[in-house]
Amino acid sequence: MVVTAAPAAARFDSAVYRDRLSRAARAAAAAGLDAIVVTPGPDLRYLLGATASTHERLTALVVPAEGAAAVVAPRMERASLGGSAVADLDLAVHEWVDGEDPYRLVARLIPGQGRFAVDEAMPALHTLPLADALTRTPVLATAVLRELRAVKDADEIAALRRAGDAIDRVHARMAEFLQVGRTEREVADLIASAILDEGHQEVAFVVVGAGPHGADPHHEVSDRVVTRGDVVVVDIGGAVAPGYYSDSTRTYVMGTPDPAVAERFAVLERAQQAAVDAVRPGVTATHVDRAARDLLVAAGLGEAFLHRTGHGIGLSVHEEPYIVTDDETVLRAGMAFSIEPGIYFPGRWGARIEDIVVVTESGSESLNRRPHGLTVLE
Amino acid sequence: MVVTAAPAAARFDSAVYRDRLSRAARAAAAAGLDAIVVTPGPDLRYLLGATASTHERLTALVVPAEGAAAVVAPRMERASLGGSAVADLDLAVHEWVDGEDPYRLVARLIPGQGRFAVDEAMPALHTLPLADALTRTPVLATAVLRELRAVKDADEIAALRRAGDAIDRVHARMAEFLQVGRTEREVADLIASAILDEGHQEVAFVVVGAGPHGADPHHEVSDRVVTRGDVVVVDIGGAVAPGYYSDSTRTYVMGTPDPAVAERFAVLERAQQAAVDAVRPGVTATHVDRAARDLLVAAGLGEAFLHRTGHGIGLSVHEEPYIVTDDETVLRAGMAFSIEPGIYFPGRWGARIEDIVVVTESGSESLNRRPHGLTVLE
Repeated sequence: MVVTAAPAAARFDSAVYRDRLSRAARAAAAAGLDAIVVTPGPDLRYLLGATASTHERLTALVVPAEGAAAVVAPRMERASLGGSAVADLDLAVHEWVDGEDPYRLVARLIPGQGRFAVDEAMPALHTLPLADALTRTPVLATAVLRELRAVKDADEIAALRRAGDAIDRVHARMAEFLQVGRTEREVADLIASAILDEGHQEVAFVVVGAGPHGADPHHEVSDRVVTRGDVVVVDIGGAVAPGYYSDSTRTYVMGTPDPAVAERFAVLERAQQAAVDAVRPGVTATHVDRAARDLLVAAGLGEAFLHRTGHGIGLSVHEEPYIVTDDETVLRAGMAFSIEPGIYFPGRWGARIEDIVVVTESGSESLNRRPHGLTVLE
Repeated sequence: MVVTAAPAAARFDSAVYRDRLSRAARAAAAAGLDAIVVTPGPDLRYLLGATASTHERLTALVVPAEGAAAVVAPRMERASLGGSAVADLDLAVHEWVDGEDPYRLVARLIPGQGRFAVDEAMPALHTLPLADALTRTPVLATAVLRELRAVKDADEIAALRRAGDAIDRVHARMAEFLQVGRTEREVADLIASAILDEGHQEVAFVVVGAGPHGADPHHEVSDRVVTRGDVVVVDIGGAVAPGYYSDSTRTYVMGTPDPAVAERFAVLERAQQAAVDAVRPGVTATHVDRAARDLLVAAGLGEAFLHRTGHGIGLSVHEEPYIVTDDETVLRAGMAFSIEPGIYFPGRWGARIEDIVVVTESGSESLNRRPHGLTVLE
């Protein structure tokens, strides 16, 4: 929403984007593609530092496997590229106006056979006319750009650390916000303000799941009043400059926890730690998922763990690598993702513990450092 | 953003969605398609009253040309369909969990040759795996659903009227918000609060373009201080229950306008009125565009009018029909769109006048009734 957004986020030096564009071009060539076409979204932000949002009018970056990258943009929206690296990198900008066909413009910029990939956020509104103009179906750029986007460089990791610290400061203040008698929505509004106060430029999401609502991992907020005895899942995140996200979950309890809750939570805590401990270069995503899952299954909580163990994070809240059963992606130093097992008991309660970790040369670094235990609030 | 969002919007009676689904199925059959596949977005809201947002996990409505519609949804996100008509209409919901392939699930629900259309908002992340699973490239559902979505029924028009009245009340209070000495961002924050206060459930956008910023039709807000003598473009909108948008622009001037500004603005006012007057069933979109454009061109302002005359509006801020040069779409009673010519003088000032109109049996009804003139504020 325009109004709550902070001033346009900074970006990295233009040299960073020059390097990324040339690596993207080499990756395209290595994948047997003639070009990658990228519309507004995280990939465009990654490759150009452009924060433009997508519209029905096509804005697209074309990265050919050979030759210079170029941009196609509506004349009236050209200003949306103003903060990006387009000018510094001296990229050609091909403008079009309402009534012209921008897809042919893109097609003319793609050499060779026209084998092309598109960013995964591209709406069908643009994907299908591009497929028509090039008379072939594109592939997803995600796999081609995976090496670039999933393996973070030092500046990206520094940004993720700042995001992690900022969201930790919000969790540290949770007793101010999460109080018996307030609705989930009231609690969430207070948390949202704190997310901005503690250094984020944007609130991405605020989940406050009290009592039975904690058993729905998709729950956001409601008008339910937080009640003594509630177990409360608080999953929150935002973006810090230049566009990197935080995402951390802690579980709170309003008063002394029921012993059965505490016992199951202790298993969850061990499962989360086991997955964190399993992270190191060379292991697979499924190996990390299994580390948490096996422990929960052994404790009879396998059915209560409804989702994957984690997701990559960076310029998107959810991106590669996904830490999911049967995913054989090999982890590499610089990858950043969540480790967030949860247990859910429909109609009763739920719990989740989530940290962002970065794969290091020898293991992992956790970017969230708040205590993992069931935190008692009054 | 979850926090500023109001409680889940109401939807129409389930019978409305039953009718829409059967009309969509007939439209698919008439277009030679075997099915339409719809992911979260305006089309899903139109067909099911579902406000789910899109994620990397596939949620999809499958509307076959023959037989019952069905839904594919991740088990953990099934609750996001809770407020929709899915249960009332007794649609089958095929759940999947992380690690399973939801695209094959969709493919199994599509009969015949598997010729399918997808909603225009569907991200390539889902469009391309669906194309793979069905071994064919889809077409856009937009054309197939155009008759349904573009021609509004009485309840939809009533919702658009409520939205128009609500945004008119915000413009009526503009002297409270738009004052010399405030930044565009401060003005926008006040306007955003008023958009909610006056009956919207959601703020969609707030553009405050003061002085030279008014010359950029894409400008949103900045930290520029509004200064005596500024011409200020204020383009604002939000959504009212059950999800219909307002969108209205007025141009203000801080103090007495320069005579040259007033003279050009008077031409713009006539051009906007000419386009409104041109609206009636049976004329084309380009005819309406031309009514405004010819007048501006004749006054030497053709180059200053950078964009199309308007866009459809409903469950999306921008949708069909687009009122654009060379678009031969024939207008029909019940279509709703903006009429918003503007003139832009880079580095100096800009102006735009925008009303939403609905095509009636004999002409049009304007849903925005605030005076069109350059409104002087102090």
